[in-house]
Amino acid sequence: MRYFVKSFEKENVTLTGYIHDVSNELKNAQIRPAVLIFPGGGYFMCSDREAEPVALAYMAEGYQAFVLRYSVGEKVPFSQSYEDACTALAYLKENSDELHVDAKKIAIAGFSAGGHLAAALGTMGKDKPTAMILGYPVILSSMGDGIYKEIPGLDEKVTAETPPAFIFSTSNDIIVPVENSLKFAEALNKNGVEFELHIFRNGVHGLSLAKPLTSNGERSMVNPVVAEWFTDSVRWLKEIWGDFYADHTSELEMTVNGAGIDTPVKLLLQSEGCEAILTEHIPNIREMLKENPMAGEFSLRIMNHYSPEIITGDMLEEMERKLAALQ
Amino acid sequence: MRYFVKSFEKENVTLTGYIHDVSNELKNAQIRPAVLIFPGGGYFMCSDREAEPVALAYMAEGYQAFVLRYSVGEKVPFSQSYEDACTALAYLKENSDELHVDAKKIAIAGFSAGGHLAAALGTMGKDKPTAMILGYPVILSSMGDGIYKEIPGLDEKVTAETPPAFIFSTSNDIIVPVENSLKFAEALNKNGVEFELHIFRNGVHGLSLAKPLTSNGERSMVNPVVAEWFTDSVRWLKEIWGDFYADHTSELEMTVNGAGIDTPVKLLLQSEGCEAILTEHIPNIREMLKENPMAGEFSLRIMNHYSPEIITGDMLEEMERKLAALQ
Amino acid sequence: MRYFVKSFEKENVTLTGYIHDVSNELKNAQIRPAVLIFPGGGYFMCSDREAEPVALAYMAEGYQAFVLRYSVGEKVPFSQSYEDACTALAYLKENSDELHVDAKKIAIAGFSAGGHLAAALGTMGKDKPTAMILGYPVILSSMGDGIYKEIPGLDEKVTAETPPAFIFSTSNDIIVPVENSLKFAEALNKNGVEFELHIFRNGVHGLSLAKPLTSNGERSMVNPVVAEWFTDSVRWLKEIWGDFYADHTSELEMTVNGAGIDTPVKLLLQSEGCEAILTEHIPNIREMLKENPMAGEFSLRIMNHYSPEIITGDMLEEMERKLAALQ
Amino acid sequence: MRYFVKSFEKENVTLTGYIHDVSNELKNAQIRPAVLIFPGGGYFMCSDREAEPVALAYMAEGYQAFVLRYSVGEKVPFSQSYEDACTALAYLKENSDELHVDAKKIAIAGFSAGGHLAAALGTMGKDKPTAMILGYPVILSSMGDGIYKEIPGLDEKVTAETPPAFIFSTSNDIIVPVENSLKFAEALNKNGVEFELHIFRNGVHGLSLAKPLTSNGERSMVNPVVAEWFTDSVRWLKEIWGDFYADHTSELEMTVNGAGIDTPVKLLLQSEGCEAILTEHIPNIREMLKENPMAGEFSLRIMNHYSPEIITGDMLEEMERKLAALQ
Repeated sequence: MRYFVKSFEKENVTLTGYIHDVSNELKNAQIRPAVLIFPGGGYFMCSDREAEPVALAYMAEGYQAFVLRYSVGEKVPFSQSYEDACTALAYLKENSDELHVDAKKIAIAGFSAGGHLAAALGTMGKDKPTAMILGYPVILSSMGDGIYKEIPGLDEKVTAETPPAFIFSTSNDIIVPVENSLKFAEALNKNGVEFELHIFRNGVHGLSLAKPLTSNGERSMVNPVVAEWFTDSVRWLKEIWGDFYADHTSELEMTVNGAGIDTPVKLLLQSEGCEAILTEHIPNIREMLKENPMAGEFSLRIMNHYSPEIITGDMLEEMERKLAALQ
Repeated sequence: MRYFVKSFEKENVTLTGYIHDVSNELKNAQIRPAVLIFPGGGYFMCSDREAEPVALAYMAEGYQAFVLRYSVGEKVPFSQSYEDACTALAYLKENSDELHVDAKKIAIAGFSAGGHLAAALGTMGKDKPTAMILGYPVILSSMGDGIYKEIPGLDEKVTAETPPAFIFSTSNDIIVPVENSLKFAEALNKNGVEFELHIFRNGVHGLSLAKPLTSNGERSMVNPVVAEWFTDSVRWLKEIWGDFYADHTSELEMTVNGAGIDTPVKLLLQSEGCEAILTEHIPNIREMLKENPMAGEFSLRIMNHYSPEIITGDMLEEMERKLAALQ
Repeated sequence: MRYFVKSFEKENVTLTGYIHDVSNELKNAQIRPAVLIFPGGGYFMCSDREAEPVALAYMAEGYQAFVLRYSVGEKVPFSQSYEDACTALAYLKENSDELHVDAKKIAIAGFSAGGHLAAALGTMGKDKPTAMILGYPVILSSMGDGIYKEIPGLDEKVTAETPPAFIFSTSNDIIVPVENSLKFAEALNKNGVEFELHIFRNGVHGLSLAKPLTSNGERSMVNPVVAEWFTDSVRWLKEIWGDFYADHTSELEMTVNGAGIDTPVKLLLQSEGCEAILTEHIPNIREMLKENPMAGEFSLRIMNHYSPEIITGDMLEEMERKLAALQ
Repeated sequence: MRYFVKSFEKENVTLTGYIHDVSNELKNAQIRPAVLIFPGGGYFMCSDREAEPVALAYMAEGYQAFVLRYSVGEKVPFSQSYEDACTALAYLKENSDELHVDAKKIAIAGFSAGGHLAAALGTMGKDKPTAMILGYPVILSSMGDGIYKEIPGLDEKVTAETPPAFIFSTSNDIIVPVENSLKFAEALNKNGVEFELHIFRNGVHGLSLAKPLTSNGERSMVNPVVAEWFTDSVRWLKEIWGDFYADHTSELEMTVNGAGIDTPVKLLLQSEGCEAILTEHIPNIREMLKENPMAGEFSLRIMNHYSPEIITGDMLEEMERKLAALQ
């Protein structure tokens, strides 16, 4: 892999990159979707608990991962943190080739105040991420009172251009009330933006991955129920983006799983034994496929279904028996 | 994190290290258990598909991860690959402090021929790993015929000193027949070594994580059923080693989850309101705890059970009501 | 088991009961929590897809299950369906002994229009269920237009007395828009009622268990992602109600898992071999327990932690060795 | 549903049946596969813990379920229990129509001694089940010593005719040693019978579903790790038998999931708007499908791939845009 920490020439602002090795044995994953993580910390710190462990979790699922440590502190206005977020996203897009990132598939994952920053980028950004993952996010402008800052209310910024969102929180979070998540979901819904929302019954604020490894030893930070959010978020990313392709039929697969009336005809023709059976029953099979190459994708069973005048039920049964005998 | 590739001054032999960042916010994970991975490849190559993706998967679960690329090739005798394995394990142990590794918790994970090497280290090694994770492993000496090498039969090498093993394979693997796994499990069983064995009905050889991201685009290399092995292996490691500790009760937890007759008494006494209720009913509660500090670990409900003469059923009910009213 | 269909002397109104057999081998499950199911069907039918299959699913998890087929049809006003719901709940409570139901643990599970009826019972009912499970529920009074009926808006009926709710729906449901779920969650939140809410990104209306077995052969009715709602709902019921108790330590358990310094002292004393070791090191152990019976619950390790003057570190280590040697 | 207890005119021998209701709304599940359960109990009793709860679990997954309480007791020879097993299987087959059972899909699930009986039926039976599910089964003839009976060693009875088996057990079972499972797996493997085997590291004997609801209150009988066997067994049955069919594309599905270049052409033609777009670009599309009806199954994207002379890349892009605009 490649690991780097890039400084943005601002105090304490860094972008950490976790990039997979490229390999000829992983041809389907040369370019990868990416997740850019904004840790939480009430805009006064960037929590390590919501940084590297989350990056590694997404990396293990095949994504390029990045962590932005953005400007924070009492005297830092929201606009400065926001600028850092914009800079980081622009950097990923401009350097996507070199970072082996698919620039059309960059998700921002943010937690608590980092969730506010992520949602800000998704709603207010001139250039936007393509998906948002928001963990117990701050959304409402009224939350600014608690952190002595003016922050925009992001439920008010949602438009039809806002990217799809995956949101999770807990109904008894006393630090960032669940109203934040509900109002944001409502705004997305009104604007026709698809979303997924999981509000768990029980859980303290700041759970991160909700596992012992992100608990710092605190019992309340371990919550196997809420921990499901991570797997769910990966499944959701795959729903909207697809997974790494895996549609090549290898020799191995065919050998192992056997050839039969459900095997695509083009594969059957690769085997001498199967070909003999096919041409015995359908002498002009190769000519047929030249005229209609799509038909090679079909199995004998489907061909019988659509063209019973070519492959009769009796023929199908007989070929099934013969193909089985080859195994 | 820290990422390094260490050369062992032998052609193509390297140890790649993936080490978590240390953080004050992750106090319970300063020192971590480790997984050392031996990729497969029939002792003629080391497959990338069973290297970094597997390391990243264990790393995401909190482990320090290492990949050994060992000596391979037609002219390389088994003894040379084995020597590399011994060297790598010794290196981890000798440098455990610097690598933030718990030297008592080092598992070897090997696949196919790498599984043979891992099982060799676990059975024949003078210094042994503390756990073995074996994916569709080569075990039997007769398998040497297929790779034109003499290799030891590891079912014959098992003793009571062999560390516990987690094994998975598929019943229709035609490259490394499942007999290898069965014979090894039998040998472990006879020697009183605890093990876990999952033989799935269906799956080709060489599945690695069995997900699109390790498939190299081949359909047969994606197998969601077999993919469960990874989660199972992590659960198994936690069964035998425990997880990162998470037993500290934070203020937050108590505030959120509420104080009641199931809360340890010592915690109740940390809250002024609760203390008032306790001392009203059990005036000498603090003296009692001085004499018998263990009692602080108990809840009022348990105290009532064991010492109904101190806390009567009526008292319990009344305190329950009062504590609930505090919420 | 016991299976019955009870008629309520109204056309097509029946209560179907699925009651577990009582057995001496299942002592911890003589009385069971119950789930009463209201199938959906737009108040014009009661769908079989949301009836027996759902009842059997909860039954398999140990609950007594009931299905109410309530009054439906063009000319049936909401009040009549509602009356049936009240009658059914009252019947379960009045006959709880005979039905082996824990009257304090009766959940209503309703789908679509059945979700409206369930939420009506939970908000408007004089007598209420203790939990609500709502699948893609109708909530808003405006939904009445689509079914040519006047129905109450249940978001307006929520009070602090409303029981906790588990809600699931899909963000692209075009028949019952997700706004229904969001508004109800908001109302619960405002009234301090705990809830759990899962809004999945994708899924058609009327999924029931979202498995082939409830699909009636339609592809769109199979949705493995949404199907997770059922397992989640059972986990949620166990969070709020607890599970069947399982806290008895059997002889078998102790034999198998071995006695050591983590075994409760009272169990160690049940074994002759262990007792000998204990009394060798702590001659007055039995007297100590008479004075302080709670201590029997502790392991030697905990005793050493709290009372190192009684059990020193050296003693602990020695006893550990001796107990291990017994195995 | 239908529930019945049939007596076989032998003392204490009964067959309990749990049959799903037939419904027009569940057209794909009129006839169902079945699971016939043999509870364990050392051939001296039939344990309730391994009877109804297991039947209900399979029933909830859509199977017809049956429990056989077979002849047991000190003076009952194995042959008598075995005869009961044969009778029960024959009864299911002879009455499959009336029981709505698919006679080609009857699995036997047996536990402990019941696992021995199940494996006996699978290996020695003149008429055999089509699948075996064996929980911590007794297999070896030497086990007869412990129960004062002569029983056949079933590892010796396996032939190529033996049906596929799903086996689970725990490596530290001290009552029925894991050797029983290993030897049976080895025999299946030698005879080319496919199988699945899960040996968990830790668990006492007799776990049944391993949940609180089958624990009888004993802590050791709850084991979430081993409890996975049930879900695994259902997945395995679906692998070998398939699931209830769910391949019908409803109008609803198409409306909701949207039409695009990945939608089968035949579906696009069902919508007026889509048809207009298609005929604009491919005027003779309907004629083409008449000649080659299989093509209707393909999406525009696949057609472009196979017949770029008919659908060019530019056409594809344009149609994609237009179809999206319809949404």
